[in-house]
Amino acid sequence: MLQNLFFLAEVVGLMAFAASGAMLAAEKNLDIFGIWVLGMVTAFGGGVIRDLLLGITPPAMFSNYIFFLLATLTCCVVFLSYRFSGQVQSKGFDYRTVVNCFDAVGLGVFSVSGVSVAIDAGYAENPLLSVTVGVVTGIGGGMIRDILNSEIPSVLRKHIYALAAIIGALLYYLMAVELKLPLLALPCGIAATFSIRMAATWYHWHLPRPLDRN
Amino acid sequence: MLQNLFFLAEVVGLMAFAASGAMLAAEKNLDIFGIWVLGMVTAFGGGVIRDLLLGITPPAMFSNYIFFLLATLTCCVVFLSYRFSGQVQSKGFDYRTVVNCFDAVGLGVFSVSGVSVAIDAGYAENPLLSVTVGVVTGIGGGMIRDILNSEIPSVLRKHIYALAAIIGALLYYLMAVELKLPLLALPCGIAATFSIRMAATWYHWHLPRPLDRN
Amino acid sequence: MLQNLFFLAEVVGLMAFAASGAMLAAEKNLDIFGIWVLGMVTAFGGGVIRDLLLGITPPAMFSNYIFFLLATLTCCVVFLSYRFSGQVQSKGFDYRTVVNCFDAVGLGVFSVSGVSVAIDAGYAENPLLSVTVGVVTGIGGGMIRDILNSEIPSVLRKHIYALAAIIGALLYYLMAVELKLPLLALPCGIAATFSIRMAATWYHWHLPRPLDRN
Repeated sequence: MLQNLFFLAEVVGLMAFAASGAMLAAEKNLDIFGIWVLGMVTAFGGGVIRDLLLGITPPAMFSNYIFFLLATLTCCVVFLSYRFSGQVQSKGFDYRTVVNCFDAVGLGVFSVSGVSVAIDAGYAENPLLSVTVGVVTGIGGGMIRDILNSEIPSVLRKHIYALAAIIGALLYYLMAVELKLPLLALPCGIAATFSIRMAATWYHWHLPRPLDRN
Repeated sequence: MLQNLFFLAEVVGLMAFAASGAMLAAEKNLDIFGIWVLGMVTAFGGGVIRDLLLGITPPAMFSNYIFFLLATLTCCVVFLSYRFSGQVQSKGFDYRTVVNCFDAVGLGVFSVSGVSVAIDAGYAENPLLSVTVGVVTGIGGGMIRDILNSEIPSVLRKHIYALAAIIGALLYYLMAVELKLPLLALPCGIAATFSIRMAATWYHWHLPRPLDRN
Repeated sequence: MLQNLFFLAEVVGLMAFAASGAMLAAEKNLDIFGIWVLGMVTAFGGGVIRDLLLGITPPAMFSNYIFFLLATLTCCVVFLSYRFSGQVQSKGFDYRTVVNCFDAVGLGVFSVSGVSVAIDAGYAENPLLSVTVGVVTGIGGGMIRDILNSEIPSVLRKHIYALAAIIGALLYYLMAVELKLPLLALPCGIAATFSIRMAATWYHWHLPRPLDRN
């Protein structure tokens, strides 16, 4: 049951991250393979970093045909949508909001999945390690996507991005390890990160900056 | 015999990648150590990523004096050529084509070498894993080079780049594992990737984009 | 004694790198979490790469509360200094020199620490591997910082950056392994890298470039 739920969550996060990368590439009018590469790198980046950090080699995601096919399918759907709409560069359609939303789903899923894999690997006793692995897993895919795409990474630029990942990862850790409720912890952790990110975008929440100009 | 051929191929790929990185640095008029660093990172980047993914630590390339000296020598030759010609920024000389050509050699060699090392590490039964490791090894060095050099990575921008790596890696896998012809597979895989990349550059082959404007 | 000295050096290097990343983020007026993320990535980046290369998983730094707290504290101090001075973008204060100085401390400490951890991991017989791991550890954190910050990495741009790391790492290796004086080697290696970097900045030392225009 828990494993099925976890698998389902990873599929959703993977497809959401793939869509976020593919859309950014499509907006730049890259060809279909550029779109696929950026989608795949975003989808698999966080999980591969997670597995390297935990010494799980080769990364588990590299031998999962279902993940591979679903992420590829997502990239194809993005390509075809752009191709048939015949529009790039956000004419009459706020693509940033859509990318942001997909990104928040992926961030939530992978922050929690990182903690969960760290716990399974035997680090339940070590909250700092587990939560750090979770946060790095969550922000890793999007960070690689933004670097490849020559943008300042979301994790530096966006309001309450790393903080949302930390809250989701910490909530999952506390519920799964301290309260021993992993089944409930999974949706709660993901929902916490996702809703904080969405609320921060929607209400323009700010964290203090050295100089508050606007 | 196979091992010698494989070693020779790796030396050629390493020097070609080193030359591509060193030339891009020289065109920006970086100093001799900047040229050397970009050359070395490009030459060793893919192989180090490959070894990390397969759990071969420390990466085998880090203790190979021959590789180290030949890559360093390549960077020196590039530096001296630029120094004595007294020209940077491509006056009367289409350096992009030369870089592209070296890059295609490196891409071919390392895509195939990645599959080969994955097979040797015991993953012959797993085509998705072997080919993925091969493709990541092939595109890894050039990707790091382009990111350090503040360019949009070739793998996103160039026509038929990731596709060429996939075809070479897949061809090697099929010939080496299914047909059990590793000796023939090595030159065929490399040649496939190299010639597809060169033909795509020469004939301006395009893959479909969301908006085909020119 | 040696272990205490080594621990102390790592704390100093970690805080110096954290300050360099946090200051660059603060100068761009990123919010407090952006400042913290760039500081932490710079502080921990090199050490995490070092541990991955040597197969030490999960990276040792991920379970060290003291390192985590001190690096976080450093980022907070940087944030508060900027907040209360109410100035960004280097008005009346040459922040580049300060960042450079912190960066040189971190470079010295981590170049030496990389060699030291490689020797402890059983590679004392292998100078190429040990020194390479040291240099990659030293330049890794700053390289990730500059890439995330959308700058051309210091290691390509700055005079005598990689060379300073190599000299410090080599000196430590020779003194610790050949002369068997690790206790003396530690301050000497760090001081060598630091003073070469500082002197190169101060006296505008140049290495030859393809075209010496100014």
